[in-house]
Amino acid sequence: MALSTQPYKGARDFYPEDKRLQNYLFAVMRYTVMLYGYQEYDAPILEPMELYKAKTGDEIVNEQTYNFTDRGGREVVIRPEMTPTVSRMVAARRQELGYPLRWFSIPNLWRYERPQRGRLREHWQLNVDLFGEAGIEADHEMIQVADSILKAFGATTDMYKIRLNSRTLVNDLFDSYLGLNQEKTSALTKLLDKMHKLEQSKFEAALTDICGDSSDKAKELLSAKTLNDLPEQLQSHAGASKLKQLLDLLEQSGIRNAEFDISLMRGFDYYTDIVFEVFDVDPENNRSMFGGGRYDGLVGLFGVDPVPTVGFGMGDVTLANFLGSHNLLPQLRSEVDATILVLGDFYQQANSLAQNLRSSGLNISLDATDRKLDKKIKNVDKQNVRHVIFVGENEAQSGEFKLKDLETGQETTGSAEALSRVIKDNLS
Amino acid sequence: MALSTQPYKGARDFYPEDKRLQNYLFAVMRYTVMLYGYQEYDAPILEPMELYKAKTGDEIVNEQTYNFTDRGGREVVIRPEMTPTVSRMVAARRQELGYPLRWFSIPNLWRYERPQRGRLREHWQLNVDLFGEAGIEADHEMIQVADSILKAFGATTDMYKIRLNSRTLVNDLFDSYLGLNQEKTSALTKLLDKMHKLEQSKFEAALTDICGDSSDKAKELLSAKTLNDLPEQLQSHAGASKLKQLLDLLEQSGIRNAEFDISLMRGFDYYTDIVFEVFDVDPENNRSMFGGGRYDGLVGLFGVDPVPTVGFGMGDVTLANFLGSHNLLPQLRSEVDATILVLGDFYQQANSLAQNLRSSGLNISLDATDRKLDKKIKNVDKQNVRHVIFVGENEAQSGEFKLKDLETGQETTGSAEALSRVIKDNLS
Repeated sequence: MALSTQPYKGARDFYPEDKRLQNYLFAVMRYTVMLYGYQEYDAPILEPMELYKAKTGDEIVNEQTYNFTDRGGREVVIRPEMTPTVSRMVAARRQELGYPLRWFSIPNLWRYERPQRGRLREHWQLNVDLFGEAGIEADHEMIQVADSILKAFGATTDMYKIRLNSRTLVNDLFDSYLGLNQEKTSALTKLLDKMHKLEQSKFEAALTDICGDSSDKAKELLSAKTLNDLPEQLQSHAGASKLKQLLDLLEQSGIRNAEFDISLMRGFDYYTDIVFEVFDVDPENNRSMFGGGRYDGLVGLFGVDPVPTVGFGMGDVTLANFLGSHNLLPQLRSEVDATILVLGDFYQQANSLAQNLRSSGLNISLDATDRKLDKKIKNVDKQNVRHVIFVGENEAQSGEFKLKDLETGQETTGSAEALSRVIKDNLS
Repeated sequence: MALSTQPYKGARDFYPEDKRLQNYLFAVMRYTVMLYGYQEYDAPILEPMELYKAKTGDEIVNEQTYNFTDRGGREVVIRPEMTPTVSRMVAARRQELGYPLRWFSIPNLWRYERPQRGRLREHWQLNVDLFGEAGIEADHEMIQVADSILKAFGATTDMYKIRLNSRTLVNDLFDSYLGLNQEKTSALTKLLDKMHKLEQSKFEAALTDICGDSSDKAKELLSAKTLNDLPEQLQSHAGASKLKQLLDLLEQSGIRNAEFDISLMRGFDYYTDIVFEVFDVDPENNRSMFGGGRYDGLVGLFGVDPVPTVGFGMGDVTLANFLGSHNLLPQLRSEVDATILVLGDFYQQANSLAQNLRSSGLNISLDATDRKLDKKIKNVDKQNVRHVIFVGENEAQSGEFKLKDLETGQETTGSAEALSRVIKDNLS
């Protein structure tokens, strides 16, 4: 029986046109975060199981990881996220590294879940982290970086909203204000995380179930649209003040589509203070795209002094959906600038022309097969290459070659140098 | 107990200085293969187990893969090599793709083996493949590409040798000429693969053991230094003629460090014709660096018409060892062009200066912590950043900022635009 040509379920093959798009997405991400002084790191895709048991949400470790025992008896995981890894790496060189430390990576991550729009088993995720800055400036910078990336892709502020919340504020709201115990707090957090996916009536029933006597207070809280809508006694809460300060800083730096959202939870256990999420406001695709926040506790889990940390992760699938639905995905052409067709026994001459053109920086492929000329030209077109150059007996003898621009139909005859100039002019 | 900060055994963490080097290696590879018209593809790191059972060497599948059963009961493998994957992808679109088809990828690959110099459990490997060209031109191009990559890294022809052999020639030598059956042929192939790692006496004993009566003939064969040293009756063998033709083409295109090597086997079962390997000639590091060859049979295993294919793989670890031992690894500096130190409550002004400088294309980081000035400067130096800019009360008021070049000690005071020019001049 013949082997299957399908990729592993929920993961993608990247044919050149797909890879070109991915390279474009990554290049824009890289360029932007590097403008902010972030430096790239990476790590093995396999990590010991313990790393995730420590602080990631239970659901991810127990139901969604790709884990197995290696031939040496070690329990290992194909990383489902990068945050535990980057914390491990910083902890390993806690004393040697200089702070503030700005790091980024674009790792592939694996989760075992039912593939659906925007959620695949393998995806890539830009991870941006700033270590060693405890002040609100770090939170501000992180949101500024996220915002700059979206703008670098051509997004405008009417396409997305940045929502902010504070873990410390929410904890006090649930605990002191609503009087919920730890178990109920955890249940409410999970409910709010799913809020936008639930029907209103189901959500309210679950809310009443969890909050009991405090249900009305909880509903009123959740109706708060701005920090000013919070109950009087909470206006001066440290978390509320920080959010106010952050919203002011964002406003001053030209970011006006940020707002307080009391229902914003973020799934992971490890966030300790301000959290944020970027939402697509397109009615067709109204959803959280990505987010992050402050997690000051992770590095310390490795037995070293803690390091204040703020970070976010931006997934490639969600991003591409966002750019696609807002018509922001570019048309990218083949990187091959010209293909030389060898007509007859002139491979050597064709190869030497190719080398000559390559030395001028052009990307040149070559067709030395004995297929018919029309088939060869059809193939150049199929591969979306703009120029074709013919090398046959006349050309081999004269050193003058015929170039055809398949886009305009224009033909030129000339030396390697002359053709190089024409191709570069056409492509510029 | 605190969590371990170690990466998984035999795999590497890439701190920014390591990642910078890897990015450099990949950039040179990418630039060079793209000059030859190759286009990048990629695929999931997990593949179904069947894919490797088909044609890869037994040892790799049975003893060296990372394989496990996923939560859905599928037997999967973390890819140990890319060739089966790329064959699968071409087979999936056999009819739609245009040929000759030039593809490359730089995947990470996993093998469970004892970590040692030049061999790690995770490594990256440039894979270059040319599909749909049956002629010797494809073999020639492949070697030309490999050679161009090494030269692009600054290698000169006295540092490495390119060794060539032919599978069809060797098969006939073992079968008709030495009279070995299939089992003995396979044993001899494995022995020759390990030849350079064995003591001469042990090698000869094993050779006698395998070849029996033909041992003297085998030894004589193995002493052949050029195609002309082969026995008369084999001079006109099709494999020998192809090798001669290839050596001529290489010579004509300026590649003079290629030679016939009858002992060159290449481990994988799937090679069908010419194979090649690039050897480091440094006496300290005398070893095979990478190689490839023709494998016309793989795409056809997926139930479609076969496609003639030539390819090679170049691993990052071996390459870096080669470049290191020949002093070809560059000193790469931090990508951060300047760090702004905020002195006092002037984050907003500092941030706006940073945004201004970034918009001119400079990579700017910012230190808004309340650490002491000397600590801040020490940190900039630690991160290998060349310029530091101070933003305190005077600067915030005047809009003129002080820049210090930590390399020369030179100081400049000026507007954002003036500083941007100075920094760019210094770095150019």
